Amino acid sequence: MSKCRVCREPAIIDLPRHNANFCAEHLIQLCRRQVEKAVKDHDMLAPDDKILVAVSGGKDSLAVWDLLIELGYQADGFYIGLGIGEYSDSSHGYARCFADDRGLSLRVLDLRDEYDYDVPTAAKVTRRVPCSACGLSKRHLFDQAALDGGYDVVVTGHNLDDEAAVLFGNTLRWDVDYLARQYPVLEARDGFPKKVKPLVRLTEREMAAWCIVRGIDYQIDECPMAVGNKHLAYKEALNAIERESPGSKAAFYLEFVDKMAPLLADRRGRPEGGLQHCAECGAPTTGDVCAFCKLRERVTGHEAVPVELVLTGAARRAYVAARTTAAAGAAEGEGSDR
Amino acid sequence: MSKCRVCREPAIIDLPRHNANFCAEHLIQLCRRQVEKAVKDHDMLAPDDKILVAVSGGKDSLAVWDLLIELGYQADGFYIGLGIGEYSDSSHGYARCFADDRGLSLRVLDLRDEYDYDVPTAAKVTRRVPCSACGLSKRHLFDQAALDGGYDVVVTGHNLDDEAAVLFGNTLRWDVDYLARQYPVLEARDGFPKKVKPLVRLTEREMAAWCIVRGIDYQIDECPMAVGNKHLAYKEALNAIERESPGSKAAFYLEFVDKMAPLLADRRGRPEGGLQHCAECGAPTTGDVCAFCKLRERVTGHEAVPVELVLTGAARRAYVAARTTAAAGAAEGEGSDR
Repeated sequence: MSKCRVCREPAIIDLPRHNANFCAEHLIQLCRRQVEKAVKDHDMLAPDDKILVAVSGGKDSLAVWDLLIELGYQADGFYIGLGIGEYSDSSHGYARCFADDRGLSLRVLDLRDEYDYDVPTAAKVTRRVPCSACGLSKRHLFDQAALDGGYDVVVTGHNLDDEAAVLFGNTLRWDVDYLARQYPVLEARDGFPKKVKPLVRLTEREMAAWCIVRGIDYQIDECPMAVGNKHLAYKEALNAIERESPGSKAAFYLEFVDKMAPLLADRRGRPEGGLQHCAECGAPTTGDVCAFCKLRERVTGHEAVPVELVLTGAARRAYVAARTTAAAGAAEGEGSDR
Repeated sequence: MSKCRVCREPAIIDLPRHNANFCAEHLIQLCRRQVEKAVKDHDMLAPDDKILVAVSGGKDSLAVWDLLIELGYQADGFYIGLGIGEYSDSSHGYARCFADDRGLSLRVLDLRDEYDYDVPTAAKVTRRVPCSACGLSKRHLFDQAALDGGYDVVVTGHNLDDEAAVLFGNTLRWDVDYLARQYPVLEARDGFPKKVKPLVRLTEREMAAWCIVRGIDYQIDECPMAVGNKHLAYKEALNAIERESPGSKAAFYLEFVDKMAPLLADRRGRPEGGLQHCAECGAPTTGDVCAFCKLRERVTGHEAVPVELVLTGAARRAYVAARTTAAAGAAEGEGSDR
């Protein structure tokens, strides 16, 4: 049996990019140190910062919240109900349980209740990929919640795999302005809050292991709306490289941050032409009305579209099969210990 | 049967990135136009330039030579015998036949004859991957041949797949100085000749089709020394992306050239500290003795190492199997009409 690199006790995980195995205790130590290093290297957080964590109910957002509390920070959670059928219902449940078990404050906003739309409906009405309306809505509402709540900084759970895949997509197109903004920290400016990503030095697999060791239940399913998107194809391409040369993925992202991002820093700033206040909501925007308010105006008031009607092909079949299995399991009383 | 996009006659090739099929005549036209565009966009060649083509005997170098002659340029070939067993012997044969059939001038230099080493021996002695000594030797000797022969420019047959794979490797490490030098044209400077890559807008598959249509016999085997190198893994990763989204590979390379290379242009120039003449051969170098002369001093005079002794694992088994098959075929008289 393989042994922990640190203490030589039996290991629970092998991490090829570190060319080592770790026991539960020293995996936890490794994760904690990588977060501390990211926070320190990029001046992400001050000890007394009032932090708002963007919580999805998945492993990454719950792990980063847990890590920050463990490291002594003061951090509240904010969950947005996106209306993605049972996926959203169960995600909300995981977020709620995590917060309640630990006595943490979780604020919840439901898109349908507050703005009379949801992500599947927005995707249907705009005829764009669901991730587009979803990302736009979340960015706007997290920003707004942080400013309204007097928070110093918004924390998101983007991990190394996420950031490497987004970087790969931006690199494949050499989208220089997107590349310039891809950085673990975006400073507060022009009415936007500071935003930081403390998990950029840790992988998906490490965050899953963190949750298991720490006893955190989380949403393990991929979002059904995201199945088949390019982001997942980019992850797979990078995983193929990583299998051949462990450490390639971390080098790809971290060397970008070290070597290339500084060359693009002057493009990370404010947009040309400056910003004004959105006529509808007051948020900073380059036009008269911000992108969120434009989206909201377009998609508000449409009757909710069931998730499966927005999905196509394999995603739809997988979603319907999962629902059918879950329903059958519940009917037969098999779901009780899940 | 699919039809040519241009003339509606039966097609011989489908090109997903153009979302179209082409007949032989219009594939030839497409290749010619893409070379003309690359030459024009990057000011690669003047009508009266005296051109030296770096010829390996593979499809790309023979195709680019053929294309340039067809387009009315004056171009001689230069072949370097690298001593890679039968692979080098047959490659030399293809280059020689191509030149003789067309009445073109091909100069040949044999590493073992002129410098008393070969690539397998250099790899064995230096204990580095063979591609390292090979690339270094070729760059030096092509440069020297161009300058000694009074050529205006060295042409190489690097195609879109090659350049995209090298770009991907450099991007995975964000090797900024390598990225800065990755450009379809390197201007003459400091005693280095001008070097250009007219095939950067065309793929491997298009160049193979060019050779077939034009009746050019070429070395179809991969170099046995290169089997398993990272370059091939990068090609495969990009091919996976390309299959999902045709056109991604061309966008990756060509958008780099358009959007990112200009931001790195000031790093493309001369190295810090300036250049002096190599004490041995007079070539420009940052040190006292150039890298080629250092290599030569180290590896000259060692007895030739058979190719298969330098190969490892799968590459060795494949090489030995191919030699055994060829030998058996020759012994049985089956090889005569090959």
